[in-house]
Amino acid sequence: MTRDFLSLADLPGDELVRLLDLAARTKRGDYDRAAAAGKRVALLFFNPSLRTRMSMELAAQSIGAHTVAVVPGADAWKLETRRGAVMDGDTQEHLVDAVRVMAEMSDLIAVRTFAGLKDADEDRREPVLTEVARESRVPVVNMESALDHPLQALADVMTMREEFGDDLRGVPVTLTWAPHPRALPMAVPAAFLRGVARMGMDVRVAAPKEFALPQWLRDEAAAALAPGGAVRYFERQDEAIRGSRAVYAKAWASPQFYGDPDAGLAARKRNWNWTVTEKTMALGDRAIFLHCLPVRRNVVVTDEVLDGPRCRAFVEAGNRLHTARAVLLSLLGGTSK
Amino acid sequence: MTRDFLSLADLPGDELVRLLDLAARTKRGDYDRAAAAGKRVALLFFNPSLRTRMSMELAAQSIGAHTVAVVPGADAWKLETRRGAVMDGDTQEHLVDAVRVMAEMSDLIAVRTFAGLKDADEDRREPVLTEVARESRVPVVNMESALDHPLQALADVMTMREEFGDDLRGVPVTLTWAPHPRALPMAVPAAFLRGVARMGMDVRVAAPKEFALPQWLRDEAAAALAPGGAVRYFERQDEAIRGSRAVYAKAWASPQFYGDPDAGLAARKRNWNWTVTEKTMALGDRAIFLHCLPVRRNVVVTDEVLDGPRCRAFVEAGNRLHTARAVLLSLLGGTSK
Amino acid sequence: MTRDFLSLADLPGDELVRLLDLAARTKRGDYDRAAAAGKRVALLFFNPSLRTRMSMELAAQSIGAHTVAVVPGADAWKLETRRGAVMDGDTQEHLVDAVRVMAEMSDLIAVRTFAGLKDADEDRREPVLTEVARESRVPVVNMESALDHPLQALADVMTMREEFGDDLRGVPVTLTWAPHPRALPMAVPAAFLRGVARMGMDVRVAAPKEFALPQWLRDEAAAALAPGGAVRYFERQDEAIRGSRAVYAKAWASPQFYGDPDAGLAARKRNWNWTVTEKTMALGDRAIFLHCLPVRRNVVVTDEVLDGPRCRAFVEAGNRLHTARAVLLSLLGGTSK
Repeated sequence: MTRDFLSLADLPGDELVRLLDLAARTKRGDYDRAAAAGKRVALLFFNPSLRTRMSMELAAQSIGAHTVAVVPGADAWKLETRRGAVMDGDTQEHLVDAVRVMAEMSDLIAVRTFAGLKDADEDRREPVLTEVARESRVPVVNMESALDHPLQALADVMTMREEFGDDLRGVPVTLTWAPHPRALPMAVPAAFLRGVARMGMDVRVAAPKEFALPQWLRDEAAAALAPGGAVRYFERQDEAIRGSRAVYAKAWASPQFYGDPDAGLAARKRNWNWTVTEKTMALGDRAIFLHCLPVRRNVVVTDEVLDGPRCRAFVEAGNRLHTARAVLLSLLGGTSK
Repeated sequence: MTRDFLSLADLPGDELVRLLDLAARTKRGDYDRAAAAGKRVALLFFNPSLRTRMSMELAAQSIGAHTVAVVPGADAWKLETRRGAVMDGDTQEHLVDAVRVMAEMSDLIAVRTFAGLKDADEDRREPVLTEVARESRVPVVNMESALDHPLQALADVMTMREEFGDDLRGVPVTLTWAPHPRALPMAVPAAFLRGVARMGMDVRVAAPKEFALPQWLRDEAAAALAPGGAVRYFERQDEAIRGSRAVYAKAWASPQFYGDPDAGLAARKRNWNWTVTEKTMALGDRAIFLHCLPVRRNVVVTDEVLDGPRCRAFVEAGNRLHTARAVLLSLLGGTSK
Repeated sequence: MTRDFLSLADLPGDELVRLLDLAARTKRGDYDRAAAAGKRVALLFFNPSLRTRMSMELAAQSIGAHTVAVVPGADAWKLETRRGAVMDGDTQEHLVDAVRVMAEMSDLIAVRTFAGLKDADEDRREPVLTEVARESRVPVVNMESALDHPLQALADVMTMREEFGDDLRGVPVTLTWAPHPRALPMAVPAAFLRGVARMGMDVRVAAPKEFALPQWLRDEAAAALAPGGAVRYFERQDEAIRGSRAVYAKAWASPQFYGDPDAGLAARKRNWNWTVTEKTMALGDRAIFLHCLPVRRNVVVTDEVLDGPRCRAFVEAGNRLHTARAVLLSLLGGTSK
């Protein structure tokens, strides 16, 4: 494995499959409880978290590591992120310094920082994650960044392997845009796409025209595509889902509306009928429902689907623990073979 | 023990005494430090906490379990609690989903959620606690709900057993209303009443007429009453306390003032002379002073009493650790015999 | 060691050197991972923290202790600090009670509470720290108080020992005032001064006239001075630094401006050219740069110095872990000989 875990796109060769196999094995309880005994994990949260925090803290502890969570602006100092800043204003510590200090005291730094959703180019640069990775002399784990969420994508793929078998090549899966009251980042769909393309699935992406995924992400997906796989784009939800074995719903904002929240909301409202319902699900082939959570019930997806027998979103959330443990085992020197 | 620990009212047969005996034994250091090794405890806090958080985290760790605390609206997402809600507003995740996720990743969920104090019927339904217990597939512990606080009541009773012996039947104890600048829930007095009635004590409840405990709670106390016990209600503090071995002071609001804070405050002000003083305590029979804490000094009780030789409120707080450990040992499969 | 760790000024005889030696040894990994097994450490934070929280939590865990952090006003109750207060206002729990409760449940209490910067006499009384130490029946550690920060000073001295050898007698070191957008407490410079005087260094303190250190602190430094040492005061930065082996920059406020923030800011602005630059550093004798962090980049010190080869601020931060561990080992009964 590379030194850091920043994106599934970085994983060499069969590393993705190896991590997934390891996660499946640890889920069965087959791992060394002292593999990372005494190792120290620092968790840096710029944004709130339930699954990510629980899974990382519990996964680290389950292999003997100690954890400490840092929340800038709450119990820790407010951080500056601009290089070269003259810090005579509101921010109290530079990100660069906080990272160096955390690295001095720990064996691994995990960081969560959402997209600004104001400047698409800025978001693509992954300003915070990149800086953390550059300044840290210990491994860095991405707990969701501006445009990636590899721990989530690992759990997504793991859940589908449990359902459809380890070899996901050619299995039809739909990633569908969904309505949402707020403009959301593209981290989860981007990470999902990187993961399912890499697994060689038959990927369908459905989104209203104005929420079409950007070209750079399509290019990335194409480049990641394994033999046996395909990625196709649809402007109609029903066409994409027809025959799919899994439906992954997710809201995301369109960069074209950055800076114009009213226009963005109006565009979402125009497509409010993209809510996933039992009727939508029935278009699939005994399709399971997936979602990263948290989810806006009866906006993104109806209660019926979430509470129904084909929903795997909660198993998927539980798999966050096992995939986090696999990543930590790999990075903290636990045997991973 | 039942699967959950939601109320002392639920405990079958001699389970209350068994838990108290276990707590006393672990206080002497007699317990297995690895009884819950590797088990995972998720603590969900809708409200602030000092004793409860400290005692639960340290108790869990003392038997080998790992803990993770979740604070919705702060480091975790803001939770929706209404069933069937169309979540197009401010709340980011549904309680139902958060609980399912926590249950996927943990072996026990503990939850703290105060009364709304707006609708007495709503509070009686215990909307959050009930939902957590219904959705969780792992045991649930009540860390204070709208109308109950069984962990506190366990510590209350444990402290009196240390003082008066294990058999508390017939021992006179007074629960007295006290003034307070804010309207407070009835969780602590209700839990206390359930506990002392169950122990067969000679229970006296003193409150100004307008803060009389509601009939449903009196009915519950009567139903819980063990042989040798009694529960009597007084409108004068001195009459109740005369001859008592213990005085438990606690402020609570009256449902009749829900929706009219000014009237509630005026009613509290009319009874501001209910503050427990050395003179009040002298009416008892070498009475000890108990309180759940936090306490408003010189409003609920004077400095003299709190800092005096008959105050047991701090021992009582310390017993929160031992009672929490007993509950966790029972629920997490530690041997408790 | 004394029961508490409140100030380097309290340490008897060769205790400071013993702690430093112990810290150096544990940094090499030479310590018992179970020295404080099952011990409980309560951390009380009235103010934000990165280094202190990380180092204390990780140090405690590294020797087998369990930790719980309490943040009044956030996840715990808002605390009253005035003795005898009639608590009919905003505060929910008295510090005295919180401390007693924490002491009931733990083996050590660590507390962080900054200066009020409104009343110099009040700050000198160390109102919160003193109260915590008085009410706690378990050892108390100062994690920065109104006018002291002994854990920081330990790390400062440790870092210089690593650079210049264990015997620091006569080594020239400059503590220089630096500009800052906000009025800051004097805790760090005061602690530093206590530490370096005790080590017998050749101490130079540089500050603009209006930020001169108060007489009581000069008296303390003189009293602490070990043979071979000296403490001199300068109104020019260059005169102080000339020939120094280490430069410690730190902003602090002047009590003369308490109650007049505008005058305080104006005074700081008048001395904005005290920023430490490469040119300043060149006056020293191959001087290393030290700072407690967090630091306002390009205000207190330039990027060039912080990111340059003579900066030891990050090693110094890392040494917070090892010095915290040494203090905890000493107080929690771990054998330290």
